[in-house]
Amino acid sequence: MRAYEVIKKKRDRGTLSSAEIAFVIKGFTDGSIPDYQMSALLMAIVLNGLDAKELAAWTKAMLESGQVLDLSAIPGVKVDKHSTGGVGDKISLPLAPLVAAAGVRVPMVSGRGLGHTGGTLDKLQSIPGFRVDLSTADYQRLVAQVGACLIGQTKEIAPADKKLYALRDVTATVESIPLIASSIMSKKLAEGIDALVLDVKVGSGAFMKTLPDAKKLAATMVGIGTRMGKKVVALLTDMDQPLGLAVGNALEVKESIDVLSGGGPEDIVLLTVELGAHMLVLGKVAKNLEAGRKTIRERIADRSGLAKFREIAVMQGGDGTVIDQPWNLPAAKHTREVVAAKAGVIQAIDAEAVGVAALVVGAGREKVDDVIDPGAGVVLAAKRGDTVKKGQPLATIHYNADARLDESIQRLTAAFRIGRGAVRKKPLFLGVVK
Amino acid sequence: MRAYEVIKKKRDRGTLSSAEIAFVIKGFTDGSIPDYQMSALLMAIVLNGLDAKELAAWTKAMLESGQVLDLSAIPGVKVDKHSTGGVGDKISLPLAPLVAAAGVRVPMVSGRGLGHTGGTLDKLQSIPGFRVDLSTADYQRLVAQVGACLIGQTKEIAPADKKLYALRDVTATVESIPLIASSIMSKKLAEGIDALVLDVKVGSGAFMKTLPDAKKLAATMVGIGTRMGKKVVALLTDMDQPLGLAVGNALEVKESIDVLSGGGPEDIVLLTVELGAHMLVLGKVAKNLEAGRKTIRERIADRSGLAKFREIAVMQGGDGTVIDQPWNLPAAKHTREVVAAKAGVIQAIDAEAVGVAALVVGAGREKVDDVIDPGAGVVLAAKRGDTVKKGQPLATIHYNADARLDESIQRLTAAFRIGRGAVRKKPLFLGVVK
Repeated sequence: MRAYEVIKKKRDRGTLSSAEIAFVIKGFTDGSIPDYQMSALLMAIVLNGLDAKELAAWTKAMLESGQVLDLSAIPGVKVDKHSTGGVGDKISLPLAPLVAAAGVRVPMVSGRGLGHTGGTLDKLQSIPGFRVDLSTADYQRLVAQVGACLIGQTKEIAPADKKLYALRDVTATVESIPLIASSIMSKKLAEGIDALVLDVKVGSGAFMKTLPDAKKLAATMVGIGTRMGKKVVALLTDMDQPLGLAVGNALEVKESIDVLSGGGPEDIVLLTVELGAHMLVLGKVAKNLEAGRKTIRERIADRSGLAKFREIAVMQGGDGTVIDQPWNLPAAKHTREVVAAKAGVIQAIDAEAVGVAALVVGAGREKVDDVIDPGAGVVLAAKRGDTVKKGQPLATIHYNADARLDESIQRLTAAFRIGRGAVRKKPLFLGVVK
Repeated sequence: MRAYEVIKKKRDRGTLSSAEIAFVIKGFTDGSIPDYQMSALLMAIVLNGLDAKELAAWTKAMLESGQVLDLSAIPGVKVDKHSTGGVGDKISLPLAPLVAAAGVRVPMVSGRGLGHTGGTLDKLQSIPGFRVDLSTADYQRLVAQVGACLIGQTKEIAPADKKLYALRDVTATVESIPLIASSIMSKKLAEGIDALVLDVKVGSGAFMKTLPDAKKLAATMVGIGTRMGKKVVALLTDMDQPLGLAVGNALEVKESIDVLSGGGPEDIVLLTVELGAHMLVLGKVAKNLEAGRKTIRERIADRSGLAKFREIAVMQGGDGTVIDQPWNLPAAKHTREVVAAKAGVIQAIDAEAVGVAALVVGAGREKVDDVIDPGAGVVLAAKRGDTVKKGQPLATIHYNADARLDESIQRLTAAFRIGRGAVRKKPLFLGVVK
């Protein structure tokens, strides 16, 4: 078999066999197929697609490029959640402890932030001492013992995906539903899960700008999971403005603690409850969604979710006291308010612009090796539909380094579109695919 | 400007600006744009195309990646011919001397053989001592003084094309009319020509299998040339069987000498006369095609074309005596006849199979660094439409090494399709694009 023939076949809209797909993924991973052949194949896939069978084979080959964790010795249905990512999306932080506290085990392999979106690992690591580089043995032990464990993608998990993603990132071959879906699913299926709830974001701040595209991505991922014998449910949720109020690592941990303590912004609470309810149903500890929602709300009310978050933090080497004393989390030395230039109603908040405003003061990475300032970020003071007076605060920038403060102020100010008439409230939940 | 943005634009069916095209060609040539980005862009071009303006910019950028020879000091219209390639296509060898003998200067930069097709340079080098690696100064001098000079592509001519072609060859991005057209035209336009006659081959033995595809390629090349201010005419000619009878380097030189001596196979003579007539019209020494054909036939009859071929050979360091004593050209030690397995009419001869049969006994290259045996090859004894008896010779293999002789015999035998009914004669000339 030759990589050339595989590229040619896909270029000519042919259907690749499972053997051909396994050959190119294996060859690319071990270096026998060079980057320039894989990037030509990737572009042919972006333009000519992969059908359901090819996609399952592609995902399986990526999955099998590394270690597939085995959690079958742990009783019960293991359920994870994955979000396609957005600005201010810290849902994993309150969700994993709440679901674990409700009796479903949550094995969670998360990523780091890049560009305008943050990463769960970076947020967790703003808790002093929190380790995300546990051995797979420790990971398995903590899933069994604590009920949840949140780690980073190890070298052993889907190395083909890691290498492929780096290549896609520089060859304009990221924007492809089959490639996005297989990348996500190969990592998630390697965690040892039995079921998965997907949070597919839709809107200006998300990767999928339109509902039809988001539905297609959701259906593609559900299809892959189903072919692999997993139960997968995808929620389509709005991402037309940042989620919650906090954007930045320690700031988002604090907001998560607020939610686990019974407070927090309404959208974060609603999304946590809804995703948690689906996880409890899949995990067979709730007979239906209504019962699931009730259980999650109870785990908030009785603070058992908060206790579980503390336990997770401590068991992963973190300082558990900051969960009860969030003011001891890393904080920026300085703050700067951004105010409304005119009176009116907030018509829209550009989530990506808010993400970049936080990034440039240190909350994110432009390049993979940039160092994050855990205390830096942005806290919104108003959201879409709010009426503001001229000079009223819209958001606060938290910063230590001021080299790019002006840029942050400009971007943040420009992110708010203030107009006249009232704004129709958009629903947070836009559909379910399963 | 970033290569990523250029790839993305073409992926999304955008139109690249001349600046973007110049940027990627320059960056790829100097190594600042890596192979994996260029191969992604090439696949996007294969699938989404280039429009006429993009194509002109692409060709110009390739042309300008190297030296553009200046022959403007030499009086008259400088005219070259280029063939898209086929098995047994030795037309350049009789054509260049005939046209030069008729008073039109022919600057000709040719290529080497690869795979089943031969190369003009390899054929010329079967003349002992013939040098194709002349300096550009010598090239210019000989075009002026002798009237024709045949050399290889120097490092200075369109280096971007050389590097691009190597990448296309391994990434299944060769088969693209804009990329083929720009590759050919960038090299030809660098020679310093004023006008060009293209011989676009059509049929089973050619790169373009169908007349519509060949017409499209022809029109694309004519379009590029016209935008660059050159006069370009393309002839569409049949390539459903090998051209002439000889396939192999010295064997083809001998056949060319036959043509220049007033003999040779009819198809070779007709094609030489027709292409020559177009070159004389473009070169303004014939007032129309009929006058051009007459002049070429006269240059054959008075042997001035043969004398010019001897002069070219001598001036390029070759042994001119072999032109008059072609039996002194390199010859293979052994021959083997391939005979008809049954009686009938030859319905078809697979040109590619004949080319490979010659290649495996040493007449061609499988890899670029393979060494050619100048005496090896195949001479056909019958062509399409001929009636043959069982056991009658179809072709003779000329060989020195017999390691792959059996394979050659098998391929050559299989190349002939012998059937019952008569075969309709196909026209050699299928159209003109200008």
